[in-house]
Amino acid sequence: MTTMSRLEDVLSALDADLPQALERLKAFIRIPSVGTDPAHDADTRQAAEWLCAQLQDLGFAASVRETSGQPMVVAHSGPGGRRKLLFYGHYDVQPVDPVDLWTGDPFDARVEDTPQGKVIRGRGACDDKGQLMTFVEAMRAWKQVHGTLPDGLVMLFEGEEESGSPSLRRFLQDNADELRASLALICDTSLYSDGRPAITTQLRGLMGDEVVIRAADRDLHSGSFGGLAANPIQVLATALAAVKDADGRVTLAGFYDGIEELSAQLRADWADLGFDATEFLGRVGLGQPVGEKDRTGLELLWSRPTFEINGIAGGYAGEGFKTVLPAEARAKISCRLVAGQDPDRIRETFRDHVRRFVPADCTAAFHAHGSAPASRMDISDPAFAAVRLALTEEWGREAAFIGAGGSIPVAGEFREVLGMDSLLVGFARDDDRIHSPNEKYNVESFAKGARSWARIMARLV
Amino acid sequence: MTTMSRLEDVLSALDADLPQALERLKAFIRIPSVGTDPAHDADTRQAAEWLCAQLQDLGFAASVRETSGQPMVVAHSGPGGRRKLLFYGHYDVQPVDPVDLWTGDPFDARVEDTPQGKVIRGRGACDDKGQLMTFVEAMRAWKQVHGTLPDGLVMLFEGEEESGSPSLRRFLQDNADELRASLALICDTSLYSDGRPAITTQLRGLMGDEVVIRAADRDLHSGSFGGLAANPIQVLATALAAVKDADGRVTLAGFYDGIEELSAQLRADWADLGFDATEFLGRVGLGQPVGEKDRTGLELLWSRPTFEINGIAGGYAGEGFKTVLPAEARAKISCRLVAGQDPDRIRETFRDHVRRFVPADCTAAFHAHGSAPASRMDISDPAFAAVRLALTEEWGREAAFIGAGGSIPVAGEFREVLGMDSLLVGFARDDDRIHSPNEKYNVESFAKGARSWARIMARLV
Repeated sequence: MTTMSRLEDVLSALDADLPQALERLKAFIRIPSVGTDPAHDADTRQAAEWLCAQLQDLGFAASVRETSGQPMVVAHSGPGGRRKLLFYGHYDVQPVDPVDLWTGDPFDARVEDTPQGKVIRGRGACDDKGQLMTFVEAMRAWKQVHGTLPDGLVMLFEGEEESGSPSLRRFLQDNADELRASLALICDTSLYSDGRPAITTQLRGLMGDEVVIRAADRDLHSGSFGGLAANPIQVLATALAAVKDADGRVTLAGFYDGIEELSAQLRADWADLGFDATEFLGRVGLGQPVGEKDRTGLELLWSRPTFEINGIAGGYAGEGFKTVLPAEARAKISCRLVAGQDPDRIRETFRDHVRRFVPADCTAAFHAHGSAPASRMDISDPAFAAVRLALTEEWGREAAFIGAGGSIPVAGEFREVLGMDSLLVGFARDDDRIHSPNEKYNVESFAKGARSWARIMARLV
Repeated sequence: MTTMSRLEDVLSALDADLPQALERLKAFIRIPSVGTDPAHDADTRQAAEWLCAQLQDLGFAASVRETSGQPMVVAHSGPGGRRKLLFYGHYDVQPVDPVDLWTGDPFDARVEDTPQGKVIRGRGACDDKGQLMTFVEAMRAWKQVHGTLPDGLVMLFEGEEESGSPSLRRFLQDNADELRASLALICDTSLYSDGRPAITTQLRGLMGDEVVIRAADRDLHSGSFGGLAANPIQVLATALAAVKDADGRVTLAGFYDGIEELSAQLRADWADLGFDATEFLGRVGLGQPVGEKDRTGLELLWSRPTFEINGIAGGYAGEGFKTVLPAEARAKISCRLVAGQDPDRIRETFRDHVRRFVPADCTAAFHAHGSAPASRMDISDPAFAAVRLALTEEWGREAAFIGAGGSIPVAGEFREVLGMDSLLVGFARDDDRIHSPNEKYNVESFAKGARSWARIMARLV
């Protein structure tokens, strides 16, 4: 196989070019592309143009494409190839606030020696500039060794990921034929917590809802009305408390219907990860798992659904005290969903549950927030085994199929709009401080990440 | 009995002097004595001095007395008399915000014709300038007819009632011998809702508490931790929901211990009031009584204890949505208490209850807010029957012994510091808009209120 036989040359080229690759990443980070902040619109566009120019230099047919928000960058290699692949990343970064907690200018990227090894520090060093550049640098070395890029490759870079990707779905719909591939490659995830390479093969979905319980038509004095008038906070607390039983199970009717048990393969893979729930919770000052009693910690995080109250408000909660019976109380709730659960049906069963607790003279009003079904990739696609092997070779440790407790909305969009699964591989570490001050990316993540993509592409194209 | 035989003369004098009495009340209202607002400190003092001068004109030995806050006005008639009586009122008024909802200058007192009869409108017209002047005007007519004031009368007027009476307890302690009487007369309450004269003979107490449940040492992402990590809002909701059972009873251990059933006399009195809970709740847009199932509406409001959640907050409750597992959640609760309940013991049983719901890796912290025991006057004191008769004669309707769901803190202070009960008589109406824009006092309340005090004093001194 031509590509495999010349892989060692590509890897050597990557190693030799690492100092220059770091300089390119630094230059990229120096463009403050805070996509969500209109004051940075020109910077954000400059980052798109910088990336486009890089890809054109490598021989891609690349262009900056307009949307109603920040632009997309789309690049194509030549037609053909064994299978068409779409690589996705995002060039926008999180805001830097609170800026006074940074040890230096967030956009003045620099390499530092730390007890955890060399790191490149700056906003976007990991999320997602460093991660996406692992793929770009792999393609640069590939071009240098092979003289051509892999055929059948599309690259898509977004500038609104940190603001919820408001233009993405429309762009995918409008350019579906151009962008549809057999598989999407996404580099926006992490190594498993102990640094083991991993492919995220399932993601939980989400259903968010808001409830407002209204009682009297005004705030009441608890001395004048207390004992006789309904208290909407009490109604709300009672309804929400009843969503879970003493064993941590969700009591909503039909909540667990349609959920499949974990496959034997994944059960074995996950057990092999040696996850310690007590240690995991200990990192945030907790130590006692909640949730269903008969499930492992990783099942509870990755493959079992949740019900959470994300916010609650009612009455007077400021300084001091008011003896008020408030007119209303409200809560925001969300469920993390797994394959087999329909977000709309779960929303309705929650609302039906609440209504059973509302007295006849009170009302419950609901407001839907976002929803997304869970994603479970078809790991029988041979690409998954091939990528696993490539990662295992690069990192010298068996790569794992893992789950993720949260959503990666773009994977859902690719599934819904373009009908394709995503292969989620990334090299971030738990201590990379993404979205926080002093974000960094280990130089090892960057270097071995690029080598990983070279090995993956050698097996896929 | 001399005083009774000349009562008709006193009442006639009151009727003849009504126009001048209204002018005096208008002048009093025009002094903007917003005691809680330092910008009105000079006005507040001016109101004290105005009142002091009125009392001196009537022959009282009156003086303005300093405290660490607003001054007190204390006045004495001559020594002796059948029993020493203390009359209490307050000359400070509520702030006028929102001032743009007033139909005129809040302090430019004026008499208006309304569908409900003539009223005097202005801040303090009812609470408490109008009410306290009913007693002052009765004493003026008394003096005019008898040539002397009733012996053994002390008057105490406070300027901080609307700000929680911070200086009152200390002043009572420092001047206990001077102020202690056999009974306090307080004019700061209402007629029963249908305009029937009433004496409030029991007041519920209060216990306020605040609980903060803390879980992780930071806010967590519900995707990363949801299902495994404790959610303090869920813990709080579950604990608070369990404070009441499905029948509206409070489940806190020992909560109802020591509470006596209503006496047969009061049960009959209250039944005679024809209270309609559905109509009462209908005024605020409700219609279905909550609380213990086997109790009348007035018992639930006046003689049964409550548990209420007055405020709750946790996580993100603003616009939009955050998939957060918050680090903490908090609630403010209060219980209205009745005779036989100890506020401190009720506070502890609430805290013990909450602690049972807190997982081992979470904490519950508590912060005590105010507490006051319930007040239940000794209605076997013949003064109560005498006042009831006096009110019945004046209003042509049987006066009622009623309860109040809220506290009147000064009555508790009189009991605790001076060991005396309070006789609470007032002529406010439910539509007087106290504490709200366009406060008013019916001229009938003012005129018949003064006549009522003349009748009462004729029977007591």
